[in-house]
This record gives sequence, C-alpha cells and structure tokens, in this order.
Amino acid sequence: MSIPSDLEISRAATMRPLDEIAASLGLGPHLLENYGRNVAKISLDAVGELATRPRGKYIVVSAITPTPLGEGKTTTTVGLGQALRQLGRNAAVTIRQPSMGPTFGIKGGAAGGGYSQVVPMEAINLHLTGDMHAVTAAHNLLAAMVGNHLHKGNRLGLDPHRITWRRVLDVNDRELRSVVTGLGGRADGTPQQTGFDITAASEVMAVLALATSLRDMRMRLGRIVVGYTQDGLPVSAEDLGAAGAMTVLMREAIKPNLMQTVENTPVLVHAGPFGNIAHGNSSIMADLIATRGADYMVTEAGFGADMGAERFFNIKCRNSGLVPDAAVLVATVRALKAHSGRFRVVAGRDLPEELLTENPDDVLAGAANLRKQIDNIRLHGVSPVVAINVFPTDHPSEHDVIRAVAEEAGARVATSQHFTGGGKGALELAEAVIEAAEEPSRFRLLYPDSADLRTKIETIATRVYGAAGVSYERSAARAIEDYEANGFGRLPVCIAKTHLSLSADPSLVGAPTGWTLPVREVRASVGAGFVYPICGDMRTMPGLGSHPAAERIDIDEHGEVTGLN
Amino acid sequence: MSIPSDLEISRAATMRPLDEIAASLGLGPHLLENYGRNVAKISLDAVGELATRPRGKYIVVSAITPTPLGEGKTTTTVGLGQALRQLGRNAAVTIRQPSMGPTFGIKGGAAGGGYSQVVPMEAINLHLTGDMHAVTAAHNLLAAMVGNHLHKGNRLGLDPHRITWRRVLDVNDRELRSVVTGLGGRADGTPQQTGFDITAASEVMAVLALATSLRDMRMRLGRIVVGYTQDGLPVSAEDLGAAGAMTVLMREAIKPNLMQTVENTPVLVHAGPFGNIAHGNSSIMADLIATRGADYMVTEAGFGADMGAERFFNIKCRNSGLVPDAAVLVATVRALKAHSGRFRVVAGRDLPEELLTENPDDVLAGAANLRKQIDNIRLHGVSPVVAINVFPTDHPSEHDVIRAVAEEAGARVATSQHFTGGGKGALELAEAVIEAAEEPSRFRLLYPDSADLRTKIETIATRVYGAAGVSYERSAARAIEDYEANGFGRLPVCIAKTHLSLSADPSLVGAPTGWTLPVREVRASVGAGFVYPICGDMRTMPGLGSHPAAERIDIDEHGEVTGLN
Repeated sequence: MSIPSDLEISRAATMRPLDEIAASLGLGPHLLENYGRNVAKISLDAVGELATRPRGKYIVVSAITPTPLGEGKTTTTVGLGQALRQLGRNAAVTIRQPSMGPTFGIKGGAAGGGYSQVVPMEAINLHLTGDMHAVTAAHNLLAAMVGNHLHKGNRLGLDPHRITWRRVLDVNDRELRSVVTGLGGRADGTPQQTGFDITAASEVMAVLALATSLRDMRMRLGRIVVGYTQDGLPVSAEDLGAAGAMTVLMREAIKPNLMQTVENTPVLVHAGPFGNIAHGNSSIMADLIATRGADYMVTEAGFGADMGAERFFNIKCRNSGLVPDAAVLVATVRALKAHSGRFRVVAGRDLPEELLTENPDDVLAGAANLRKQIDNIRLHGVSPVVAINVFPTDHPSEHDVIRAVAEEAGARVATSQHFTGGGKGALELAEAVIEAAEEPSRFRLLYPDSADLRTKIETIATRVYGAAGVSYERSAARAIEDYEANGFGRLPVCIAKTHLSLSADPSLVGAPTGWTLPVREVRASVGAGFVYPICGDMRTMPGLGSHPAAERIDIDEHGEVTGLN
Repeated sequence: MSIPSDLEISRAATMRPLDEIAASLGLGPHLLENYGRNVAKISLDAVGELATRPRGKYIVVSAITPTPLGEGKTTTTVGLGQALRQLGRNAAVTIRQPSMGPTFGIKGGAAGGGYSQVVPMEAINLHLTGDMHAVTAAHNLLAAMVGNHLHKGNRLGLDPHRITWRRVLDVNDRELRSVVTGLGGRADGTPQQTGFDITAASEVMAVLALATSLRDMRMRLGRIVVGYTQDGLPVSAEDLGAAGAMTVLMREAIKPNLMQTVENTPVLVHAGPFGNIAHGNSSIMADLIATRGADYMVTEAGFGADMGAERFFNIKCRNSGLVPDAAVLVATVRALKAHSGRFRVVAGRDLPEELLTENPDDVLAGAANLRKQIDNIRLHGVSPVVAINVFPTDHPSEHDVIRAVAEEAGARVATSQHFTGGGKGALELAEAVIEAAEEPSRFRLLYPDSADLRTKIETIATRVYGAAGVSYERSAARAIEDYEANGFGRLPVCIAKTHLSLSADPSLVGAPTGWTLPVREVRASVGAGFVYPICGDMRTMPGLGSHPAAERIDIDEHGEVTGLN
C-alpha cells in the first residue's frame, strides 16, 4: 500500500490552535509561550498549577531488540496516543527532540511517520525552539572556561591530562571526533587532545532530561565533573564558576515544547539524550506536567526494553518518583525473523527477499528475544503489552505466532496499523493498554541507590541482559573504585552497549546466554546523575554517508522545504 | 549621576504588546510569529505587503574613531529612535544581534544601555530567536560536507591544502583558534589544520545580512567558496550539494526579529556580522521592511565612519539599492581627547584621571579625527550630523569645541543625553537629524562595480582612510589576480583593519597622513559578496579574560537572570 510521504502528510494535516491543544491538558494560555505558529513552550508554573489534579496513567513504549532499521517505536507511541483519544480518553504523548545531525545525515526527518507523526515536521526536525542549541552553547561555554582556567594560571590545579570535558556540535562530522585544540601561539591556549560529540550526547542534555525543576537543573549543572586534579580530586562546573551562566543559557530550554500529532493529540517534545551513553528518554519535566494534564500519558524509551525501558525505570522513574502503569513492547515480524539468526538486516539496504516470504517458523525461531524482553518489563512489576507493528509485507500466520508467544509469556498483545491508519489503526492496542494500566502497579526498582556500582552493573547484566557474568578491564575496575571514593557510588548506572543485541555483541541475536559482559571503561555523568560503564565501542559523533540527506534537502520556488523525508 | 543597572531598567520597562508595536509600522498580526512573549519574527511577506508605501528617511549612525571602550553608538541609535517618536515621527530602529561569546566574555549584555536600550535585555543577549545558532548549524554542516567529500573519494578534486572553510561557534574560546581535526583512525576522516571562528565572523552571517530575499540567500549560500582544486578552480557550497540544506537551516533566520525599546519604539534586531572581517551592519531584510514601515528608520553601522559607514554605503546600500538621507557621527569628549595623543585609553581599565579634567584644548587637539570622519560622510553625498554623546564627566567648554569644529566642517551638531534621559535626552539630536534628512540626498557610491580590486582598495585607502598609498604582500597581490581571473573582481571590498585608528596602526590617533596601507592577505566572501583585504592581525575568535562575565551570571531564587550587565 502506498501512502503519501511524511512531509506531504504533515503539510496536509489540519492543525488546531495550540491554546486549544493545551486546554485539553488543563493548561491555560498564560502558561504558553509561542515559538512560531505551531510550537509553544510550556511555563514551568504548570507544575504548580496542575499539582492538585490526579496523575494519569503513565505508559512507556519500548521494543524488542530492534534491527538497524528500527521497529517503529515513535510511530507506535504517537499512534497509541491518537487511538486513546479516539476512545475518548484524554491522552498526551511525550517524546525526545530529534537531533539535526542524523536529519541531514542518513535519516531525513524523525518525528514519527505516516499518519502517526508530530506536526509540523519541519519544526520538530529543524531547530524546534532552540533547546539543542542551548545545550551546545552551555556545554561549549564550560569547555571554554576549562581551557581559560588552564590558560590563566590553573588555580584549581586541573591535571591537563585528566580533562574529561569535550565539546559538542549538533552535526554528523567525523573529522571532529578526535582533534587537537590550543595550537598556534602562547596566546592561543594550551594544546589538548580532545574531540567533539554530537550535542545529543552532551551530559548537559542528560541533565536537561533528568532535571525536576530549574533549581534542580542549576544544581546538576554545578555537579558536572570536567576533570581531575593531580591528586585525583574531581573538578566541577561549580568550581569553575560556570554553572550559573550555563543555567542562564538553559533557562528557556528547560520548558517543554508543546506540539500536536496529525490527529491533534498533544505532544510534549523535550530533550534528546543519546541512547548510547545516556538514558535515551525524553524529559522528566514534560512527564511531570503531562501526567497531571492527561489521563493517559504515553512516552517513548529509546532502543529495546533491555536498554531504554530499563533506564526509564531505574534512572528516569528513580529521579522523578513517577510510577509507570504499563509498558508497550513493539515487535515486528521482520525483527523476530532477524532474531532467528537466519537473515542479515543492514541499515540503508533492502531487506533480504527470503525474509519477506511467509514463514511463521522463522518468527518462532526468533521468539526468545520477545520472551526475554517481556520478562524485562515484568521484572520491574509493570504490565507488558506487545504491539505488533504491522507491515504490508507481513502474513497473518506470522502475527499469530507473535500473539501466541506473547500470551504464553503472560503479556497482552495487539496488532497495530497506526502508520497507515493513524489512531484508528491502533484501537486494539489502545484497548489492551487501557486494560493493562488498570492492573494495580507493582512497580519496583531493580536495585537500591545503596548498592555498590559492581552490584548495580551485575544486576542489570545478569537479570536484564541474560549475561552469565561481568568482566572488568583493569582501568574500568580502578575507575569504579575512584568513583566510589569520590562519593559517586550511590548513582544509578547506565550501561553503554550495543542496542542491536541483548548482549554486548551486535551479532548475537535472539536471547543469548552464557556470555560475559565486558566492561572496557567506566565514565561518570555526575551532573546528570549516573555512572556509565562502556561495553564495546561507543561512537558519540556520527559521520555522514556517501550520499547525505543534506544533498536532497532544499527549498522549492515557494520557499517550502523539500526532501526532508 | 547614578542610574539603575541596565538589567534593572530593562525589568522595570513597561512593554507594549508586539502586535501594537508592529501595527505602528503597518505590519498586521498575520505577519508576526511570536518567539516567547516579547520577541516576534516578521514574515518576509511584509516586503510585498508594504511595497506600495513610500520609503521613510534612512538614517545611519556611525562614529568618530572610537576608543577601545566604544563611544555609545548603539545607545545613540536607540535614543535617536525614541526621540523621533517623542517628536511625533513614526520611527523605527534596526540593529545587529549581539554575539553570546562577548556576553559571557568581557561585556555582559549589549543591547544599548541605560534609558536607551532594547528590551527584554535577557532575550536580545541570550539566543534571541536562534538566528546565530542557525548560522552556526548551516556553517558547520557545510564544513562536515567538505570533510565528508574528501573522505568519500573527493570527486571534485578539492586540494586538501587549499580548503578555506573553517568552522564556527558562538563562544569566546581561544583554544579553538587553531586546531587539527580528523585525527584518530581511517574512519575518522582526513587530518586537517584548521580552526574555529566566532559565529558572527561566519560568511553565512554576512550572507544573512546582505540577502535581499530567501531566493537571494539561497543563491549566495550556493556561491560560498570552500576551497580550491589542484588547478586553482574554486569549489562552492553548490558544487557540494550543501546550499539547499543550508538554506533550509536558515529559513527562519532570514526573518527579522521585532522587539521594542524601553520607550516602546520598534526595533528590528537582525544578523550580527563581525565588523573586523565583514561589513558589520545589520540586515538588509530588516531595512527593506522598516524603511517602508517607518517615516524615519535609524540603523547602526559598526565602528567608526571609515569602517562601518563606508561599508554601509559601499556594500550594504550597493546591495539593497536603499538611499541614505543622513548620517549621525557619534563623538565623545573622551575619544577626542584620546585623539590628541596625550592619553592612553585601555579596555577594562579606568580612564586616566587627567583625561577627566576640564581641558577644551585637548579636545581641539584631537579634532582632526572628527573633521576627517565628517568628510568621509560627505564624500558619499550624505548629510552629517555630529551627536555629542554627553558623559557626566564632560564640561560645557569641551562640548563647545566639538560644536565649533563640526559646524566649521559644515555638519549639524547636537548634544545628546539619551543614556540617562532616554528619548527626551536626544530631542536636540532628533531635530538636527530631521533637518539634515530634509536636504535632497546626493548619495553616491565611492567606486563602481567595474573598477578592479586594486582600484577599489586604493580608493578607500586614500580617500577614506587618508593613506598615501597601498602596499601588497606578494601573496596578497597573487590572490587579487586569482580572484579577478575567477570573476570575483566585480565584488566590492571590505577592508579588514583596526577600528581604533583611521590607519592600519591602532596607535596612530587623530587623522594620520603619509602612511601606507599594508595589505597582508586578501580573502573572498564570494557568497556574501565581497573581497576582504586584511591589513594587520585580525582575530576572528576572541578569548575569555581572567574573570569572564560568565562567572558573575546566574539565576536568582525566583529563576531570574542576574549579573548580565
């Protein structure tokens, strides 16, 4: 079935005034600040004004372990929100802001798709209200102040070889991964081996996503560690006198952005932390507002349930105190077939022909991943709902297998055709979610703050990933000791590993067992509030492809954007 | 006399709804897009809608050669606009957007000052509507595409040693002036010796300021030259397929930003090109709209009249076709005393005590600079008005000297106390400007497009700067030949020299003669549309001081910004 392009659907959407969208969440016009015609920032005063309203149901959308193509989590999130509205429920959606690097790189736009997308797609994909840019500015101001501190006498005794704060830009630019700065003459600073990450990977972005108030953001920014002294003591943004200015740069960015879907469901778009090395979830501020404003609040967690949902539970909910009522697991026929180990799916290439022929056995052969990810939701005491994201190349017999496996594992299950059908296509899913959310929440964190860092890592590795154990490089083990000595041991952990496998090896499909999680390095985002062990190579600055999307993007004779999808 | 801080005055200002501000310029609410509560972008449809209205008087505010402290050009521009309103004239002001680098560096905010400032000062100094960030994004996307082109086979045959396109960030960061990128492994690109400029110095910013329509901006972005082939042929952003995406990134930025002064005079804040290496004037788009909307449109040109005003006439007006009706020359007692050569004024230090004692002779000893700058205005057929920006430490006898010198040189003259008095303090100035603008304009460009580059340079050097001649480094002479061979010879020139002297030597005060302008290097901003000979050291990335303003900037317990001025 052929439907119009995302950009065409976006253009054809009938948008409602944002005042009206906001009103459905109990937000008066005095709480809105318009940014252009179809985006508004929501004043943080909303938190106080809505405080007496009961919290709505809190639904997280996750997935089985995806293929490199992604399994449609954002479209499912949007489609589910729309379907709940169609069922007469007051629903809202919260998602992350897309990063412009990939927009001009491989992806084009990223705001859902088809009839389950956020509009206008030009706005969400380009600058939005400048939050990403504010993160870039705050992050790089701190970098400049670190360099300036060294240049002006190094009062704090920063060890030039132990500066951990890099710079960021919201662009796919491989040449910036590894750079030497401070060349030139004496007036041009101190030479440093360093690099740039993409803005989404900035700790400042993670701070934005996890802050629970402006004041809390100010404190977290102050706690950011930029490096260590010769004696191994951490030096913070507060020590450098940078945290106040960084907060001022982020003062508007902390306000969530209100938009709408093609069906006028309210969407709060806010923060965009990089799922590889951060928790990969949209902001707590948005959820604090939208759970009060809506009866059903649907949010997306990045990657598969072992990654995004685990961090949603153990990092985001730990910080916010919000309690999830149900979790959606997006599953696709193609991903389960890929988990059989019989096919190879590569980003940017067509799916293998044989994967598209009817073969329920291949789906069953990959079902171990679905079972494990259902377990990963239940492990946290949350009711799972499997959403079969239907593709035109699917066969009913293949859906039947997914249904049977899910039900056997004790999950609700529904097919969903939100991409082509919008909210109407996701009604069965919405009904299953409403049922699941009615069950009393038995939500529990996987580990207490007080557990030591190794226990936290090992708990996630063995219970969520299915590893037999964890191994540590010597430097990783030493970093853990140092962090605990510095008082960072109480932080939750955010394990950086591939999202393409439950294991740390992207080629291991299904639900591998008997393997060991190799912790190569351990870093700390002390400001954001987590320690992140790194297992495998984590790229924090993408590159452009041979034919970047940027080459196709332009304006037409009316000044309208073309080629964004 | 002590008045409240700029931030206090800004907070206490009674702002009018922007719809009302816009209406006074004939702009209906359908042409406004709000960005937060007190800033709006103006749709470019305004150009067409206002096309049948007569153009108002077009006034440029320049200055004598300033001290490093600046002589109050922005406050005079704002104060004059306010005074014209008080006299019942429909006035508007257009100025550049301040750069955030200096805001967190030495300066704090920069939006006028005292009772002649643009409000809210937090908005104009922090992000505004994101135009600077859009320039950063577009500029760095092009840089990434240059690097990617080399990495992916270099189809166009770019010479890696002749890549002229650097990167930009809106921060004062000396460590970024000179960097090596592309280190790491084969997957991390090609090593390059390069650097970062501050965003205001980006050619993309100069394009934004000189574009006369969205389509024109698209073409100028396409013409940007990023480097040369082995055969010396220019390679453009268009060749790389980047210009469309850059335009899409700049599609909102091209719309001027509407704000207001503390007295509710309309202000269009737009573009912020670096005066050192670009023309240093606010945008043509803003002036195209505001000259139709207002009866008197007052704009500021950077630095002294030899720099900003010369470029205003010969670059900005050449591009826009707009005809200036009068030029204000801001003069101060302190700057004229400094031009006597008897004092040394240093940025960030108190003025010398002796400079503050009454001494009209010192003023007269520095008057040559004022005479020459008056000449520089008359050279372009425009009526000069000298504005004595009054300081509390001035003496009436000193003002009398300035008055006498100006009148003798055939200029109108008025004192102005807009800093402490707002528009009311600038009434005498406004009356003089009204008179001057009534004279029929005999505006003329200093040189035709068809003159060769050496003739253009020599015309400005001898006629405006008062040089005896021009010398060229060998490489500069060769660059001129190459540019003319590549068809860039028809462009106007933007001479990059110190703004602290009419000459290229910042220590030469007054109106030096008998000196030679040394052209060290010649570069081309082909997209923006000018060639810029560089005379002396031009820093395009500032550093932070020992006590950067950022250390004092923070939020208070109510979340309000503190320490911005």
